[in-house]
Amino acid sequence: MYKRYSLPLLLLLASFSCSLGYSANRDAAIIAEHRQHLKLDHAKIARELVHRANWASVGSISTNEIVKDYPMVNIIAIDDNDANNSSTGKIHFLLTDLDFTGPDWQSNNKVTFLFSDEQTLNCKNANKDPMEPTCARTIISGQVKRLPEDTPSYKASLQDFIKRHPAAANWIPEHHFYLCELDIQNIFVLDFYGGPHNVKPADYYAIQL
Amino acid sequence: MYKRYSLPLLLLLASFSCSLGYSANRDAAIIAEHRQHLKLDHAKIARELVHRANWASVGSISTNEIVKDYPMVNIIAIDDNDANNSSTGKIHFLLTDLDFTGPDWQSNNKVTFLFSDEQTLNCKNANKDPMEPTCARTIISGQVKRLPEDTPSYKASLQDFIKRHPAAANWIPEHHFYLCELDIQNIFVLDFYGGPHNVKPADYYAIQL
Repeated sequence: MYKRYSLPLLLLLASFSCSLGYSANRDAAIIAEHRQHLKLDHAKIARELVHRANWASVGSISTNEIVKDYPMVNIIAIDDNDANNSSTGKIHFLLTDLDFTGPDWQSNNKVTFLFSDEQTLNCKNANKDPMEPTCARTIISGQVKRLPEDTPSYKASLQDFIKRHPAAANWIPEHHFYLCELDIQNIFVLDFYGGPHNVKPADYYAIQL
Repeated sequence: MYKRYSLPLLLLLASFSCSLGYSANRDAAIIAEHRQHLKLDHAKIARELVHRANWASVGSISTNEIVKDYPMVNIIAIDDNDANNSSTGKIHFLLTDLDFTGPDWQSNNKVTFLFSDEQTLNCKNANKDPMEPTCARTIISGQVKRLPEDTPSYKASLQDFIKRHPAAANWIPEHHFYLCELDIQNIFVLDFYGGPHNVKPADYYAIQL
């Protein structure tokens, strides 16, 4: 979200830097990249980041007495697949009250999930710094919704989750894990210079991957 | 932090499961793994995670009006190297007031940095789920300390940072980034079943990698 420039400004910069002897090719590349950016589908980028990730960095307001009221950040396995392994955009995850996040959301139900293209090393492999705005990230805030366990859809969603996270089959019986879905309130997407974009949840869910 | 068992319990379980026809080899492997765990140096694991990562998922208390008072989670490039690229354990990072984290810490100086062995795909490559407690993570909370800019040590630390994050050379002049260090208040380490370990900052800094 650092660089705030418009296409006219870029064109001005390009002509200016040409007169200073900079490469016209480089300027053309910057302008082409900017034009490409204008076509970026931010909702689709958010959906792709969520679908590609197997986990999120999840923030909650800590109830742990050592760091009470600090933001807690935990690693939480996630899944947005349906039974055909197709993306739904629905963020499912397992929580337990033995971990940090479980007690936190029940005390203050405000959580934030961070997904970055660097989680799969896509940025490193493209020689982009993980903090560069072109290393796409989405920051999704909302409420934890514990799914009712006595429904057929719970069992189906749990099966989908375990397909993606086989280790979870051991967690559930031993440590009282329960399946949840994120009730999304806000989506920020950063995918280029110029600041975050706000994506409406309806637009996010409407994407077909 | 899910499984809470002791070695005597494991031995009991092993003898019990043998009588039920389970593999003695598997039981021996569990006990060997547990013995191995007793030797884990949690402070060293935290230092290794910090040193290996190029970034952290950083939680702050949001001042953004759309998600005010939510935990915000952002991706922040970090560096703990000295001039010889040796680990110091000191977590250095660049912030700007144009991003989420910059305004947040100035309003409420409580932040948490998450580092996971999955950031470098070490868990995936070892066929461990990112949420499994054996996929090591450290959760480090504290205060942001803005480093004074008019000192030789600031310039030296900035040079070390840029060596590791060359893209940062462009961020600083254009967007008023400033170098910070995390003043560590609390360190949690999860590296096996049985819950998080608390590592004292002095023990963390004393490690030689």
